[in-house]
Amino acid sequence: MSAFLNNMFVADSEALLHSSDLSIQRGYAVFDFLRTIHATPLFLQQHLERFFCSAEAMHLKPAKSKEELTQIIEQLIQQSGLQEAGIRLLLTGGYSPDTYHTATPNLLITCNPVKTSSPELFEKGLSVITYPHQRELPHIKSINYLMAVWLHPLLAQKKADDVLYYQNNIITEFPRANVFVVTKENKLITPARNMLKGITRSFVLQEAAVFMETEERDISIDEVYNASEVFLTSTTRRVIPVLKVDEQMVGDGKPGTVTKKLWNVFMKMEEAMIP
Amino acid sequence: MSAFLNNMFVADSEALLHSSDLSIQRGYAVFDFLRTIHATPLFLQQHLERFFCSAEAMHLKPAKSKEELTQIIEQLIQQSGLQEAGIRLLLTGGYSPDTYHTATPNLLITCNPVKTSSPELFEKGLSVITYPHQRELPHIKSINYLMAVWLHPLLAQKKADDVLYYQNNIITEFPRANVFVVTKENKLITPARNMLKGITRSFVLQEAAVFMETEERDISIDEVYNASEVFLTSTTRRVIPVLKVDEQMVGDGKPGTVTKKLWNVFMKMEEAMIP
Repeated sequence: MSAFLNNMFVADSEALLHSSDLSIQRGYAVFDFLRTIHATPLFLQQHLERFFCSAEAMHLKPAKSKEELTQIIEQLIQQSGLQEAGIRLLLTGGYSPDTYHTATPNLLITCNPVKTSSPELFEKGLSVITYPHQRELPHIKSINYLMAVWLHPLLAQKKADDVLYYQNNIITEFPRANVFVVTKENKLITPARNMLKGITRSFVLQEAAVFMETEERDISIDEVYNASEVFLTSTTRRVIPVLKVDEQMVGDGKPGTVTKKLWNVFMKMEEAMIP
Repeated sequence: MSAFLNNMFVADSEALLHSSDLSIQRGYAVFDFLRTIHATPLFLQQHLERFFCSAEAMHLKPAKSKEELTQIIEQLIQQSGLQEAGIRLLLTGGYSPDTYHTATPNLLITCNPVKTSSPELFEKGLSVITYPHQRELPHIKSINYLMAVWLHPLLAQKKADDVLYYQNNIITEFPRANVFVVTKENKLITPARNMLKGITRSFVLQEAAVFMETEERDISIDEVYNASEVFLTSTTRRVIPVLKVDEQMVGDGKPGTVTKKLWNVFMKMEEAMIP
């Protein structure tokens, strides 16, 4: 039992959807993803809040309240016996009689082992490429990752770890992570629009504001090329330095002071959650 | 038995996918849709050709050949007992171990009753609105209809039957149909790029060329507003007049000569298929 489908707990092998579901027919669904630390969900309220915002923006209504979802998630974690788990909440367009219009949404919650970034990955950092693309309805956490998955062969060919989207020369986000830039003037900047506002992004912005100037605004590709530090934030990767962009070295090619500081702040927050 | 899943015929209720499928996780899948006339598939080879093109462009390889798919489709039609059926071929990114990268694709073929356009719908015609949007990877028939489904409430509010996408003032397509314009000079024009080339579109272009000048090129919204006729083509709707665009009447607000002629050509082709 490691999943919850609509009204009941089911074995993972029973986490099935009929092919008439609008996620399968038309890629129409929203989701959210969070993880646990010592069996305690991290930023649960923020993830639930965003899940409900995504659902509403997609004209989908979850049949469960935030309180009910919280209980279901806690039960899933307990049943799984996992200390470090990834919880995925999915709300689809439902079993559509005409394969085109929404019906009663299907709600699926899964709880599985999760892999997070290691100190080794932090030291090694990431090499990324830029690519011109604007996600559709970017404020919604929909399941539309068509471009991201389609680009996998290009990433392999370029030996890149991830792709940074831009449009009209302005960077927006990675497919599953937010981007931050430390300028030569030691200011922390991050895009303000046309992307999904990550929960880790919010935490990092707030923590950084304690010790440095921060700003949410448009960032050009050139500013990325000329940055002293670039890093990404995500639920599983936390805070990871980007050391190469389009084959160009960022700063001195090593994890920078601000990135390190924010990684340490994040790890301390996690340690504080250990009972 | 009205579906085929990977390697076997299954009842429709058994046409299930596990939630780890990349269609459900990331909206990553391609499909095609054709219909039968008196139990004979219409434009089967063209649809199979396009299905394989979509699959290849998405880096997905069907485990069945066109010949095998043809046999499966014929068997499905026979089993269904339907004279007029809709056949949907779906190829997904597969059961992804990391919910992000493709695995062995899942192939699902369904055969269900289909509703086609009636002479009454032809006479009534359609009222459409325009909307600024460019589909991602438009040459691929992917399951990404995020924008199309998301716009349903707007269509209802505007009392419109469908939405015509445009970008930079150039029209491209409807979510599930191609657009044609008859100019005041009695030339038939249709977009040439940034859209999916429909099978019905090809047939109509070919048939129209017999009796009038045709051209594939960029078309501005103003050309649509000033057209003598506008119509759409699709597998289920055949050739249907668009009589209102953004609340403005097209021509004299009645189905035009060219549209009627092409509808008749299409219906005669269908009648010729009756044994």
